[in-house]
Amino acid sequence: MNWLDDVAFDERGLVAVVAQDAGSGRVLMVAWADRQALAETAASGQAVYFSRSRGRLWRKGEESGHRQTVREVRLDCDGDVVLYVVEQAGGIACHTGRASCFYRLLRDGQWQAVDPVLRDPELIYRR
Amino acid sequence: MNWLDDVAFDERGLVAVVAQDAGSGRVLMVAWADRQALAETAASGQAVYFSRSRGRLWRKGEESGHRQTVREVRLDCDGDVVLYVVEQAGGIACHTGRASCFYRLLRDGQWQAVDPVLRDPELIYRR
Repeated sequence: MNWLDDVAFDERGLVAVVAQDAGSGRVLMVAWADRQALAETAASGQAVYFSRSRGRLWRKGEESGHRQTVREVRLDCDGDVVLYVVEQAGGIACHTGRASCFYRLLRDGQWQAVDPVLRDPELIYRR
Repeated sequence: MNWLDDVAFDERGLVAVVAQDAGSGRVLMVAWADRQALAETAASGQAVYFSRSRGRLWRKGEESGHRQTVREVRLDCDGDVVLYVVEQAGGIACHTGRASCFYRLLRDGQWQAVDPVLRDPELIYRR
């Protein structure tokens, strides 16, 4: 019996993954994982996803340096969503240079960017 | 210009929604919303989803009584995931009677149910 058999991957072989910051508690991002990404995450303790746009494993931080050390891996009641509780290197999960991808708040009928850019994306990805 | 136009609904007209507890910070559940569900959530301040299994709007708590009062609605950088920050009535989001749907923790190579059942589901849904 393998824990990966309990995960309800969709017809593409993917499962949604929510990443949450272990310290602040903030929801950082939502991405996808395939079986291999989950296996590698559990084995390495570093968050691995499956990039749909690139069609390959995505070791979070491989370009940005903003790796995620995984403290907990959880599964929801339906088995079709995984939660990574992580320590976020650099305190930046979003490619926009913000702590969280959820930086837009609905206020007065519009989305307002309420979280600061902590580091210029040009500096993050120019390596 | 309407805030709903900024949401990247998928080919089914749905967007993933993460619900997080405003008090504990816990990730409670992940579900789906369509345009109408988001509009009603914003208007009413109560979390509304779209139930894929029932094919209709799902006003969270309509059967269980475990409604969610929405304190914040956020959108991620790609526009394809929404975050509801909520006050969870009864402190129970999961149909299993637990605080969160993410009650299974990966430990020693298996999923272990580490969160207590706060109320028997039979009692929640027998109304």
